[in-house]
Formats: sequence, C-alpha cells, structure tokens
Amino acid sequence: MSDPVDDSGWATPPLRFDSDKPVEPDLLARILGAATLAPSPYNLQPWRFVVVRDAANPRRLQACAWNQPMVGQAPVVVIVLGYLAPDQTHLDAMLDRRLELGACTPGRAAEIRGRAVAAVGRAPDRALWATRSAMLAAASLMRAAGATGVSSALLDEFDADALSETFGVPDDHAICCLIALGWTHQSEPFPGRFGLDEVCYAEHFGQPWTG
Amino acid sequence: MSDPVDDSGWATPPLRFDSDKPVEPDLLARILGAATLAPSPYNLQPWRFVVVRDAANPRRLQACAWNQPMVGQAPVVVIVLGYLAPDQTHLDAMLDRRLELGACTPGRAAEIRGRAVAAVGRAPDRALWATRSAMLAAASLMRAAGATGVSSALLDEFDADALSETFGVPDDHAICCLIALGWTHQSEPFPGRFGLDEVCYAEHFGQPWTG
Repeated sequence: MSDPVDDSGWATPPLRFDSDKPVEPDLLARILGAATLAPSPYNLQPWRFVVVRDAANPRRLQACAWNQPMVGQAPVVVIVLGYLAPDQTHLDAMLDRRLELGACTPGRAAEIRGRAVAAVGRAPDRALWATRSAMLAAASLMRAAGATGVSSALLDEFDADALSETFGVPDDHAICCLIALGWTHQSEPFPGRFGLDEVCYAEHFGQPWTG
Repeated sequence: MSDPVDDSGWATPPLRFDSDKPVEPDLLARILGAATLAPSPYNLQPWRFVVVRDAANPRRLQACAWNQPMVGQAPVVVIVLGYLAPDQTHLDAMLDRRLELGACTPGRAAEIRGRAVAAVGRAPDRALWATRSAMLAAASLMRAAGATGVSSALLDEFDADALSETFGVPDDHAICCLIALGWTHQSEPFPGRFGLDEVCYAEHFGQPWTG
C-alpha cells in the first residue's frame, strides 16, 4: 500500500505524449473492449466511441477542444458518447444475445424488457442518464489502458457544437469527454486528494463521517 | 483471458445480498478511499458520498428508489453525489495540498487556478459536469469493492426529489446513482455485450470500425 495511485489502478495524466509512436491496433481493440465491459442499466450499454487517429484529424479535434495541446499530440483520441435512446433501438438485440448465452430465460427476458422500457422512459434527463453509463465505460477504458502501459488523459473541455458538426455526432448522442491515449515517458506528480472526512457523510448529507 | 468479466475487473451484479453480514468499517473506508482516487478536471474532485448503513435507513432509502429490493437488502448503500461548485469553495484547499506535496510550484498553482476558474465557468451544464467525475469515482468504488470480494450493484432508478428531501441533499449537488454494497453468494450470469463493430466508429460518427 505504498502508492495509493498505483494501488487504485489510476495513473496520473501524462505530461506529454510521444506523437510518433502509435498505439497498435490490437492493443487499442483490447482497451476499447474493456470499456464495453462496464455495467449499465438493463445492460443497454448506452456508450459509443468515435476513435480518431488519422493524421489529418488531431488538429481538427484540437480546434474543437479550446486548442488543448494534449489533443493534438496524442496518437489516438477517443470521443466518448452517451447514446440517449438504446431502449428504442437496441433492446431486442441485447436480449437476443442474453438468451443466446443462456444468461436468462425467455420469461425473464420479457420481464426485463417491460422493466427497462418503464425505467428508461421515466428518466427525467436522458443526457444525464446516458452520461452516467458512458463515464463508467470511460473509467474502464482508462484503467485498461493503464494496465497495458498506455497513458491516458481525460479532457472534458470541448465545444460540443463544434465537435458534433466536425465529427457528425447526431442530436441523440451526448458528448461526454475526450480520452487521449498514447505512450509517454513522464507523468504528472500525484496532486493529492481530499480525505474521507471531506467528501463522505454518515447517513445524512452534512453529518460528519467518522469511519 | 478466459473470462472477459473477470479480466475487466467488473463483476456482474449480485442476485441477492446477505442482509445480516455487515461490511467492516475498515474495508468500507478502503473502498471509499479508492473512489476518491479517480481523476477529475483540475483535481477539483466534485464527488461526495452519503453512506447509509443504520438499520433504520435502508427502508427509507428503498422508498426513494421505487422500492427496488436490492436497496433494502444491502448492508451499505452509498448515495453518490456530484458537487456543482467546487471551483467556488475547494480550489484553494486543493491547491494548498498540491503545494504541500511538492506536486507543483507556486507559479504553476496560480496558472492552474486561473485555468480552472475559466474552464469550469464555461461548462454549459454543471450537473453534467459534476456527474462525469462522480461516475468515474463510482466506477473506482465498484472495482475496489470487487477487488476485495465485496459485491456491488449500481442503481440508477430513484426519485431525486424524495432522496434530496429524505437525506438532506442540497440543490448544488446532483444525485448520480446509488451503489449497494455487501456480501453475496451468487451473481447474475454475464449477459453479454455488443461488439466493437456495434459501438465504435472510425474517425467520424457512423463510419464503420474495422479495427
């Protein structure tokens, strides 16, 4: 337990990516595959990933992200999207797969269908609903990258309208974050974290956490 | 690489918690500590956790969560909040800690302060902004639980107004999800996931991913 950052599986952000060293396609596919293993309500998997690595695109992407240098340097940038309507388009495909795997009975599939339609239907804010799951996938992606030695930086400053326009993101997808991926030799030093006494409450908001 | 779920560090949800077996306080503190190690913009750490485990509270919580049985069974439920205004209240404390750790110079701290205030100030939706980081922390919490053998279930169906009223959550905090924690003997079978060809695009939304 000497290094809390290493123990947690999170790495601190890189100081600078090596622009000339690509992330191998097989490795990238493994990292993206790990992202898809995050849990989501009714297994609706409302995450989508636009993977940007063509030489022409980093500059276009950087222009949509207030010119943050990291975006232009990284050999791969993943635009993480939350899809707002998987209950309308992907419920059958998801349940078919579950049945094929023998992971539920037809009766249970029918029950899941009914509950999923009702539950997602009453979500008050679809962008928030989809963003929650997409960020679990983003966490999974970053940790899988770290586990394979690939550095990642999460960037949440971007011009959503410009990104949508440039990369064709439709209105029923929320842009959640950009994740820059690549190789690096040096990372930021760990900046510390607030203690549990500052971020945890016992039983009721505002009531001190005493362990 | 035989079991993609185990490889990813995610566990499938438990079928039923053992209500009578508590999560030891030291173990719970380790799991919460791991949650706080997630990254966040400018290290502002906009996550807060209300930890519910008093015998009287699970039923009150369940009533705010459409009576989902899991909420009443679990010995611990964490209400994960996103805090909307850490740039206004916690920027100094965060930078002081960073300086104490020797993780930046006073000049760099001043630069971070300026950029953080500008960046968070132009976030178009503070609830979305805070929710993104809080869900990275939620992911970290769930995976730390799994690594110590504790089962977790993420519940995103709740009546936010009822939760706020019952647990005193103020308006400047978004309720992101509930995480039920406890011991269990049996988990759901893995329900499958969509392949990368279904959730990834190459360079532009809608353009097929070919690896």
